[in-house]
Amino acid sequence: MNETWFLDTVRWQRGALRLLDQTRLPEIETYLELTRVDPLIAAIRSLAVRGAPAIGVAGGFGVALVARELREGPSTVARFQQETDRLIAARPTAVNLRWAVERVRAIALAAVAPDGAGRLDLEALEAAALAEAERVLEEDLDLSRAMARHGDPLLPEQGTVLTHCNTGGLATAGGGTALGVVLRAATRGKQLFVHVDETRPLLQGARLTAWELRRAGIDHAVNCDGAAAWLLKTAGIDAVLVGADRIAANGDTANKIGTLAVALAAQEFGVPFYVVAPRSSFDLGLPDGDQIPIEERAGDEVVRFRGGADLAPGSAVRNPAFDVTPARLISAWVTELGVEHPPFRPSAPGGGRADRTGS
Amino acid sequence: MNETWFLDTVRWQRGALRLLDQTRLPEIETYLELTRVDPLIAAIRSLAVRGAPAIGVAGGFGVALVARELREGPSTVARFQQETDRLIAARPTAVNLRWAVERVRAIALAAVAPDGAGRLDLEALEAAALAEAERVLEEDLDLSRAMARHGDPLLPEQGTVLTHCNTGGLATAGGGTALGVVLRAATRGKQLFVHVDETRPLLQGARLTAWELRRAGIDHAVNCDGAAAWLLKTAGIDAVLVGADRIAANGDTANKIGTLAVALAAQEFGVPFYVVAPRSSFDLGLPDGDQIPIEERAGDEVVRFRGGADLAPGSAVRNPAFDVTPARLISAWVTELGVEHPPFRPSAPGGGRADRTGS
Repeated sequence: MNETWFLDTVRWQRGALRLLDQTRLPEIETYLELTRVDPLIAAIRSLAVRGAPAIGVAGGFGVALVARELREGPSTVARFQQETDRLIAARPTAVNLRWAVERVRAIALAAVAPDGAGRLDLEALEAAALAEAERVLEEDLDLSRAMARHGDPLLPEQGTVLTHCNTGGLATAGGGTALGVVLRAATRGKQLFVHVDETRPLLQGARLTAWELRRAGIDHAVNCDGAAAWLLKTAGIDAVLVGADRIAANGDTANKIGTLAVALAAQEFGVPFYVVAPRSSFDLGLPDGDQIPIEERAGDEVVRFRGGADLAPGSAVRNPAFDVTPARLISAWVTELGVEHPPFRPSAPGGGRADRTGS
Repeated sequence: MNETWFLDTVRWQRGALRLLDQTRLPEIETYLELTRVDPLIAAIRSLAVRGAPAIGVAGGFGVALVARELREGPSTVARFQQETDRLIAARPTAVNLRWAVERVRAIALAAVAPDGAGRLDLEALEAAALAEAERVLEEDLDLSRAMARHGDPLLPEQGTVLTHCNTGGLATAGGGTALGVVLRAATRGKQLFVHVDETRPLLQGARLTAWELRRAGIDHAVNCDGAAAWLLKTAGIDAVLVGADRIAANGDTANKIGTLAVALAAQEFGVPFYVVAPRSSFDLGLPDGDQIPIEERAGDEVVRFRGGADLAPGSAVRNPAFDVTPARLISAWVTELGVEHPPFRPSAPGGGRADRTGS
């Protein structure tokens, strides 16, 4: 049922959450088997699992882990809320994490009525959370399929694209957002060349996107982020495709740091700039991007390269993990619903359900 | 006579060219002592000496090394030209290298008449080249002083600037271009905070600019290149200052890869963008930037971090070392002659001589 280009990024297996450890790629392909909440929070914070849709799916399973851990203390609704809120707080910018945790939590709570003392049936709670998390995962694979299909007409039969960060199977439950569009089109015969921004500081482009493209046999070249503008001027690039961590009602889009610079260059050189993201990345309660919280991460990510020596010992570091690209720089937003533009209509009730009719 | 913020980047000492080895900074402060041409070419190629003015000065001394090596073969004018042309070819984008080598070569040749068989008096040739190379060096220090003085009025008494790559003492004979303006202003009392683009792939910002700013006790923070646009939007930056490797007659400016993206963001967010470079970086024979050759360097610089494991084994790499920022994105060009705008008047005959009247 899965496409040939799909990966097993996030899965529930034998009572544990199984995550492909993205901090070890490309050198080592290894999986984390998580049975506790704190290691999951650590995995999300360290970017062992990353990409807005992927951390959403992982967070959904995290709700089941919370339900299981409640057996060790007071099994109240308040504590369930509190512990699942810790999951949401693991990373502040991507809205999918909050969306998925809140969805799974609400469904699980609806499935079990607390007793007179406010205590929960924890086995039922865990089972309900797990079932809903599995639905989030399955839907995420459907969403990837739908986005890849809707984005396909934006790519030429033969051409060149540029992408930033990693938005393939690794960034989702296994399908992809922006890179998913490219992977599907190329594996179905389009002749595409992909320029891959290395994506400092953690090099998700050089480490992860290039790895996915090699697996899929798609021609590509890695470049420093600072070279993207020059490539957009000189390399005959037909389109830029990026993912999103949070999209406001007016279309302002938070994504990996460096996206804004690419969008400005794309505008300068007349290259269409597309955002590919599921509706769960939209935060229509925010009128614009000014309200999106931007995570500032540890400076060591910048000045220590994969744990090596400090390149600027004694210097301060600024490490905003995301920036916000204003809507006017974005040509279109590709979601599971199609190619969209603001004002975005609200998702259907029960949102997140992908169009399942397509190929 | 030198300013407190000057460094000994390039010097002639005890019959050898002494270069601060910039590939080892910031961990190790060590000097190369070069007495042969090929190791100098290797040092220029490996960026042990880098920065357009610094490689110009080093190339000037290289002419003296060529004269010395001519003793080992036919001592003809043709061979002198040929061997010094190899110096020029060491790096193609920065025009200062060609400018300095051609200047020192012409002066040296004018000082010694070949004999009837076309043979040169090599001791006289070496002495003349050395004397002219020393003049290039002394002038370079004067140029740094003059640029720093002319650029000073562009900086507020208290404010924040952003810079890309390294343009301090390390990029020149010891003074600096863009960073020189900041170093002089801050050491004379302006309260400046400097955002430092790390400058991939070789991290001249994180490794070298931060090192110079720490030495000078100036507040600063290092950031990934991709974060510059977001900082220009959000960090209250008053000005961007960068150097140049070659400036065309219309003002189009080749500089370290990533400069173009910073210039586009500066324009977007209304931040003045200044180029600081000596007149020896101008190539007024080129009408615009389209004719500037852009060096493409080895992919390993991008995917192997300081010689470490390949992050994208099997992937192609694009590694243009420079980009060209169109003149319309540049607020002003600061040279030893003052704050300039195109059309640039030709330098005075005997060009490169700095205004020596200043402080």
